Amino acid sequence: MEQQKHGGDRYRNQIVYDASVNVNPLGMPEQVMERLRDTMSRWSRYPDCQCQALCRALEAFHQISAGQVLCGNGAADLIWRLCMRKKFKRGLVLAPTFSEYEAALLASGSKTDRFFLREENGFQPDLDALCQAVAGHDAVFFCNPNNPTGVLAKRYQLEQLARACQAQGAYLIVDECFNGLCDDPEGATMIPFLDKYPNLLILNAFTKTYGMAGLRLGYLMGADQALLEELSQASQPWSVSCPAQEAGTAALAADGYVAESRSLIQRERPFLEQELKKMGFMVYSSQSNFLLFSAEWERREQLHSSSLYERMKKRGILIRDCENFAGLGAGFYRICVGRPMDNRFLVETMRGEGNR
Amino acid sequence: MEQQKHGGDRYRNQIVYDASVNVNPLGMPEQVMERLRDTMSRWSRYPDCQCQALCRALEAFHQISAGQVLCGNGAADLIWRLCMRKKFKRGLVLAPTFSEYEAALLASGSKTDRFFLREENGFQPDLDALCQAVAGHDAVFFCNPNNPTGVLAKRYQLEQLARACQAQGAYLIVDECFNGLCDDPEGATMIPFLDKYPNLLILNAFTKTYGMAGLRLGYLMGADQALLEELSQASQPWSVSCPAQEAGTAALAADGYVAESRSLIQRERPFLEQELKKMGFMVYSSQSNFLLFSAEWERREQLHSSSLYERMKKRGILIRDCENFAGLGAGFYRICVGRPMDNRFLVETMRGEGNR
Repeated sequence: MEQQKHGGDRYRNQIVYDASVNVNPLGMPEQVMERLRDTMSRWSRYPDCQCQALCRALEAFHQISAGQVLCGNGAADLIWRLCMRKKFKRGLVLAPTFSEYEAALLASGSKTDRFFLREENGFQPDLDALCQAVAGHDAVFFCNPNNPTGVLAKRYQLEQLARACQAQGAYLIVDECFNGLCDDPEGATMIPFLDKYPNLLILNAFTKTYGMAGLRLGYLMGADQALLEELSQASQPWSVSCPAQEAGTAALAADGYVAESRSLIQRERPFLEQELKKMGFMVYSSQSNFLLFSAEWERREQLHSSSLYERMKKRGILIRDCENFAGLGAGFYRICVGRPMDNRFLVETMRGEGNR
Repeated sequence: MEQQKHGGDRYRNQIVYDASVNVNPLGMPEQVMERLRDTMSRWSRYPDCQCQALCRALEAFHQISAGQVLCGNGAADLIWRLCMRKKFKRGLVLAPTFSEYEAALLASGSKTDRFFLREENGFQPDLDALCQAVAGHDAVFFCNPNNPTGVLAKRYQLEQLARACQAQGAYLIVDECFNGLCDDPEGATMIPFLDKYPNLLILNAFTKTYGMAGLRLGYLMGADQALLEELSQASQPWSVSCPAQEAGTAALAADGYVAESRSLIQRERPFLEQELKKMGFMVYSSQSNFLLFSAEWERREQLHSSSLYERMKKRGILIRDCENFAGLGAGFYRICVGRPMDNRFLVETMRGEGNR
């Protein structure tokens, strides 16, 4: 088996605390746990192929039209299904960004290009340049807020990109999996533009927002219902499990939980940012529930074996080593914002390890 | 949305009893329910991409070598992944059989041929003719026991087929999803031949055997480890959820449960068979947990609107209308063997509806 490409490999490490994955620090809402307990005896039945109850709940939640949403076995399932089905000629992805876009594009035979974000700009994308770069591509993936940088593009910038993609006949896939935990979800989401731009597809998931990574539940929104139908036929009929469907509908009714999570993140992220800076790390500005930072001395010396990642792992803490993100390299790390006690434990351990 | 292709659409029908899906009548083993309750609070974590604990448990359970098993989001996920990845030139499937083989082959651009089973032979495959038919194909799917007929091919026959496929450079994919509930699982499985025929792939799932259809958990076994590795890379890393992995390892330790299920099925299947015959149906011999039967008068008259399926549905009972199986047609039905009270309820209701 190849090496783990993503964070969170707690299955082959003795872990006290995992800061390498970006899930909601509050864990699953209690209403979700209750629904899981209550419905468990019915999971011997096949799940609803059409995810009917869940789709209706999502349409109401996001105020989109009926038939504009397709559910999948996590957002990653939908990324792969879209790429395998559409077999894009040439895809464009940011660098650094979540690596599954490129993995799915390459696996489906597409060529890919990377639009490199510049560290000196705090990894903010230059939207004019990006719109120019769309030429020659039929699919553009844009993660917003971007993973692993936490940078949130403004909606007018993304509309400019949606227009550029439409003019080029390219799909724009905006991954909003971290939207729910960013500072201003309503102001950031591209959902209001779905009807205006039929080439716009929006990905979202329950994974991070509702702390449901283990249940696998994501969804794709778009006004092009023929495309959604095509994608629903490009897979087995039972891709979304019963527990995922039950948990999803229960989560959407968990009033207050996401707002509470956001305010926790908004209180705790500045604490982590400050502490990392005090330790001498370069910290990049994030509007999400995670922070990208780098260790200048590691970047200079390229000392992998004694990296912060390795040293923290020995202490039972997983952080995300970002060396394998295209556009980053040795010495870059990502941590998730956790509960206050977790963040303090993380910072104290790191203080002992930060500068060797 | 297109019409439901498979059985079990209890989500758009008021259902008292569902005999249209072939899951274990005993429901999930209690040990599985316990494990689900005990591990639920950890499902906010990402699942293990490698399904390490589950794979080791499967290797021990089936006495296969390390690395000879790959887990997926139900067996259907693995059927689709195999077809999408290998893009077979021309696949061969039985008719009638489970329709996802052909669906996945066609969706991945393969041509497909059907090997029709003959009703006058009780839908027993003529293995000599099938071996002849392999020529020109690079993938042969064989469901054993076959769904929807319940017919079990003998192991020496399948070995003959494996040899013919090997000689032709074709993969033989034997779907043993109903193996655990058939009369003699040990005597029927092709697992002992994995090392001898590297072109042999065996599918299995927890769906039916352990009454876990809603959890989505299947696996593919084969001696060609490079192929399994290739297939594991041809998908998102987190295709198997935490509840599925937990339930799977717990199920394999549920001693006695499957044997108890089998003896229930062996007692009840003859009862259903007799009762159906008394009602004038043609019943085909099955060695699995379901029965295929047909209504001569419906086949003659092609009366869809007043079919047994429709009339039973009005009474709150789902049976599987087999009209959409290639090689069958109007008037064919499949029912699952249930618990004694379910079977009597089914029979009594049907007696009132059987002949209109």
